[in-house]
Amino acid sequence: MFTPQNPDYQKRVHHSFAQQTITSTLSMSIDEIQPGQISLAMPFAETHTQQHGFVHAGIITTGLDNACGYAAFSLMADQYEVLTIEFKTSFLAPAQGQRFVFTGKVKKAGRTLTFVEAEAYAIADQQRTLIATMSATMMAVAQRAKGPD
Amino acid sequence: MFTPQNPDYQKRVHHSFAQQTITSTLSMSIDEIQPGQISLAMPFAETHTQQHGFVHAGIITTGLDNACGYAAFSLMADQYEVLTIEFKTSFLAPAQGQRFVFTGKVKKAGRTLTFVEAEAYAIADQQRTLIATMSATMMAVAQRAKGPD
Amino acid sequence: MFTPQNPDYQKRVHHSFAQQTITSTLSMSIDEIQPGQISLAMPFAETHTQQHGFVHAGIITTGLDNACGYAAFSLMADQYEVLTIEFKTSFLAPAQGQRFVFTGKVKKAGRTLTFVEAEAYAIADQQRTLIATMSATMMAVAQRAKGPD
Amino acid sequence: MFTPQNPDYQKRVHHSFAQQTITSTLSMSIDEIQPGQISLAMPFAETHTQQHGFVHAGIITTGLDNACGYAAFSLMADQYEVLTIEFKTSFLAPAQGQRFVFTGKVKKAGRTLTFVEAEAYAIADQQRTLIATMSATMMAVAQRAKGPD
Repeated sequence: MFTPQNPDYQKRVHHSFAQQTITSTLSMSIDEIQPGQISLAMPFAETHTQQHGFVHAGIITTGLDNACGYAAFSLMADQYEVLTIEFKTSFLAPAQGQRFVFTGKVKKAGRTLTFVEAEAYAIADQQRTLIATMSATMMAVAQRAKGPD
Repeated sequence: MFTPQNPDYQKRVHHSFAQQTITSTLSMSIDEIQPGQISLAMPFAETHTQQHGFVHAGIITTGLDNACGYAAFSLMADQYEVLTIEFKTSFLAPAQGQRFVFTGKVKKAGRTLTFVEAEAYAIADQQRTLIATMSATMMAVAQRAKGPD
Repeated sequence: MFTPQNPDYQKRVHHSFAQQTITSTLSMSIDEIQPGQISLAMPFAETHTQQHGFVHAGIITTGLDNACGYAAFSLMADQYEVLTIEFKTSFLAPAQGQRFVFTGKVKKAGRTLTFVEAEAYAIADQQRTLIATMSATMMAVAQRAKGPD
Repeated sequence: MFTPQNPDYQKRVHHSFAQQTITSTLSMSIDEIQPGQISLAMPFAETHTQQHGFVHAGIITTGLDNACGYAAFSLMADQYEVLTIEFKTSFLAPAQGQRFVFTGKVKKAGRTLTFVEAEAYAIADQQRTLIATMSATMMAVAQRAKGPD
């Protein structure tokens, strides 16, 4: 559906992902990348829960934000980095499971802004439950830029 | 401005906060609680950054979500827990600093739903910069309930 | 996918829709209703534009909100009305066309809250363009209730 | 707090506002403009209600979007127009009143993007009630541009 501007887009995504310390802290990994689409995985960890023992909404959001950001980044030209402008997350069910999957998909890729949507699933005893959705706006910024401006 | 239904609201907030493993993982602490308001703090940590070395948007969101959730929780009666229904986060500036502060404030407290807003600040070399804002909906659920329904 | 609690759900949706004066002001109509899904249509009108001559974002949002609200309402039991708690709208392309279509689809229907997504399309010279997306939270309230509480 | 790039910012806002047909359809008017801030007013009208006789959420959103858009526009240089990228609206109380007021205030003005917040109030029998809040992202685009890209 989308044509990547950079044939090496998968390599670029893996490289940027590996530079995030949060991904190794959360043992987050890339399952699959396609132009404008990505799937990430994260195991449950006792160290990232809220008061009821479920994974904290902010950690689920971390996975969703990465799914949106790297889905957008996969379509960007070489000289651009990706920055999150804003996102909304809706929590449909408790983040309860052994493993979590985050899928991101570009809705519209523009020169400056990219609109992306993502879904989070909990995997518990082989069953996959939709637990959260994200709607996000990502921005392409020239490398070394430090913020939305 | 708000009258807490539970005179022990501060104790309840501290107790629930301490049950979150994520708060100790992130070294997050409570600075101040008032009815419908809270201020949280978190130091910078190398383990929670995105690809440019700033704190990850999802971790900033974790602080904002806690600020919104516990601001709402401070007004709830004894038999209720708080659950996040949804939030939107806007990222105004990079999360760059030695320390981060998250302030939450209830806009409207209802029987079932509470609307809350929060702001995140980065403290770098004594200077405080607004880096993110959140608008959230929180829900009061009878204790031991497991989800938004 | 969803089983309506009320076999007369289509009639109920049509009845409630007809009680909105805004729908006749905007010449909005129902194209199709299924359990948890709806499609609405609206012609372009010179009276509802913003400064560049496109349909105003708030009017596109009116269609999206109705699509979300009635998709949710189609699954609710007889004694409930639907209220909008919050929504986010993303604007992907200008609202330029002869006709607009709004499709709403329930993501998760709970006892109290229903999460819904909607898309807005502009139809110009036979071509259909995705112009906006909405992510919304709807609430079931006992009839004659006047607000989210 | 903000310094307008254009000393004629008030005139520019009034001019752009007057080009919107929706503002006259809704009898919306500008109460006050300051750099990065605006206040709008709208009377109740029978023609813009939802199924319970309150003003439709989309019409309240129209006022909030204008408040955000023109608060942002007041700070932009001459060659730029303002476009709405996205917004989230939270509905705190029913839109019931004789008159409605919308106040918008810039949180952060950047070269390309401006983050804005707005509040909607219902005025009923002299009493002012906060009924809705908006968090929005606005974009500066060179004149005659037709969309977010």
